[in-house]
Amino acid sequence: MVVAISRRSEVEPFHAMDVLAEANRLRAQGHPVVSLAVGQPSDPAPAVVRQAAADAIAAGKIGYTDSLGLPALREAIAAHYADHYGIEVPAARIAVTTGSSAGFNLAFLAMFDPGDRVAITAPGYPAYRNVLTALGLEVVEIRLDGEGALTADHLERAHREKPLKGVLFASPANPTGAVIPPETLRGIVEAARAMGIAVISDEIYHRLAYTAPDATALAFGDDVTVINSFSKYYCMTGWRIGWMVLPEALVRPVERVAQSLYISAPEISQAAAIRAFEAGAELDRVKERYRVNRALLADALPQIGLPLAAPMDGAFYAYCDVSRHSNDSMDFAQRLLKECHVAATPGLDFDLAEGHRFLRLSYAGSEAEISTAIERLRAWL
Amino acid sequence: MVVAISRRSEVEPFHAMDVLAEANRLRAQGHPVVSLAVGQPSDPAPAVVRQAAADAIAAGKIGYTDSLGLPALREAIAAHYADHYGIEVPAARIAVTTGSSAGFNLAFLAMFDPGDRVAITAPGYPAYRNVLTALGLEVVEIRLDGEGALTADHLERAHREKPLKGVLFASPANPTGAVIPPETLRGIVEAARAMGIAVISDEIYHRLAYTAPDATALAFGDDVTVINSFSKYYCMTGWRIGWMVLPEALVRPVERVAQSLYISAPEISQAAAIRAFEAGAELDRVKERYRVNRALLADALPQIGLPLAAPMDGAFYAYCDVSRHSNDSMDFAQRLLKECHVAATPGLDFDLAEGHRFLRLSYAGSEAEISTAIERLRAWL
Repeated sequence: MVVAISRRSEVEPFHAMDVLAEANRLRAQGHPVVSLAVGQPSDPAPAVVRQAAADAIAAGKIGYTDSLGLPALREAIAAHYADHYGIEVPAARIAVTTGSSAGFNLAFLAMFDPGDRVAITAPGYPAYRNVLTALGLEVVEIRLDGEGALTADHLERAHREKPLKGVLFASPANPTGAVIPPETLRGIVEAARAMGIAVISDEIYHRLAYTAPDATALAFGDDVTVINSFSKYYCMTGWRIGWMVLPEALVRPVERVAQSLYISAPEISQAAAIRAFEAGAELDRVKERYRVNRALLADALPQIGLPLAAPMDGAFYAYCDVSRHSNDSMDFAQRLLKECHVAATPGLDFDLAEGHRFLRLSYAGSEAEISTAIERLRAWL
Repeated sequence: MVVAISRRSEVEPFHAMDVLAEANRLRAQGHPVVSLAVGQPSDPAPAVVRQAAADAIAAGKIGYTDSLGLPALREAIAAHYADHYGIEVPAARIAVTTGSSAGFNLAFLAMFDPGDRVAITAPGYPAYRNVLTALGLEVVEIRLDGEGALTADHLERAHREKPLKGVLFASPANPTGAVIPPETLRGIVEAARAMGIAVISDEIYHRLAYTAPDATALAFGDDVTVINSFSKYYCMTGWRIGWMVLPEALVRPVERVAQSLYISAPEISQAAAIRAFEAGAELDRVKERYRVNRALLADALPQIGLPLAAPMDGAFYAYCDVSRHSNDSMDFAQRLLKECHVAATPGLDFDLAEGHRFLRLSYAGSEAEISTAIERLRAWL
């Protein structure tokens, strides 16, 4: 037997996906699992989106598209920037990607070389750290304990210690729901520019803020890379479709890498996503349900000894402190799944240092699921 | 402006994709373009596959699946190995991927570390070289000029020069259509094992050989990594769905990397692909058309001064020598597209050293397209 296994494959597992796989196995065995582990809406994609997909399939040929995406989808995304943010972005700067997952990979490969230092926040989305590491980049974690969102100060301190090549942040953030206010965002983008640090803004939870309108990093310059997706607000997780807005000079490097690494995003999903921006009314009703779920959790979690670690200003996650019940959130999550069939994600996914104290609950499910989960948690604790 | 652009993004473009984009632009302008540039069937996916996709969309929720794929699809793929090759492969060793593109990326990341030497053949599929390079691996090209297919001898010579960590080959091969006979394949796998070289066998053109039955590298050991896809024989290019068969020890490393890098393959495509193996009769009729196209090209190309560089034993490509007409196949392809609206791929994609003499024509299109292309070529030359 000769089996090569690389050192770089020794990245952390994405524990949420392991929990999902285990929840799926339990459910297949007939257990009444309620899954709050994965950040995915329980609603299907909007009706117009599903109709467009059905039409594309009925029309027959589903083929490779241009690597940067169907021109009509790139145009629709460009129009969204005008409609939603009042910002002009030419379609030529849009790259359609196979979910934001491909957006991150393409950004990291096209922007950074092995050894480059890239700052992310802790806690933060685990794939940032895992993919950066697998691609040979040095991950610099900026800790946000109790401070909520990233600021220019954080970035300047990290850069002073040892120069950064890039910074990646999300607002609203996963797992905390923290939102970076517009003036703070401007401060980060301008400070990064002054220090020669390239900016990647993960805006996948835009249109899912509950207390303030969205601000895009694009408002503060054409040199930022924005990553977004149809997965969250648009309820299209399993369709694997997202986009990047690129500085002009990055379009061709991203296209070259994408041609070999992805060929193109799935065409059915591209054809369907063209219609997603028309579905605002339907999707805003879904968002209203998240708002109800959010209120349920904000009320119940502190009562049952799971205080919130952040104010849930956006996205659809409650990041709560389990340290009153356990000092090992991984073990806590495993017992929670096994003993009361509630799947949640251990904080270790988002924060290697402090995550053992936290648990993330997604409230993108139905109100019934959230209520059931709260009842089971209350009884169990 | 601060825009980071990496050195590793300076991979070669996938010229076929650039030709496709240009062909799409010309077509959108109303030009009657015949595209033989990209290896994609002109037939839609089989009827049962499209029905399964429509059903999945109608059923509503399309979500993230287990990172290694829907259990039913992994089972269907495992059953295919029993049915088609008479080989037992447990479903637990199958990873469903977002096309073979993801399979290559996952194999390279999970098996090799930066600086590792991996052998591929020249000519060969350009994404091998581009992705290996972008991931920091040293590409060792084994030249196959006039020899058709890889042998154990080639591999031993390359390894003697400087030790290899891995080897990747395809049979049937792109762009030549060359097929590795079963005993030669056994020789390669056994020689690689003896030298401690990990094997990746690209079997994406299986079920598309015209002169002999398929042999899978899995017949010669459980330590090989096989990559395959629903794109070619199964006519599902734009669905972005493929699979890997992994040595047991690689399953978890691949799963870990896939969780962060892809989350999961598109669920519509997964649900649809489950039915693909039932469609053999429909797909064999499509293959018969390739056989007709292949005969048309085998007859016509030498007549018009474009002799074949390989015997077209499998896949759906004619790799022909243009040196009687041009010493720059890139320029030749550009003029061919501009002046007679036939899109073909310059050999440079497949072979940096000798590709300037060659052009690849895909014959996966309709008989009418192939005939039209031949007529236009004849008139133009």
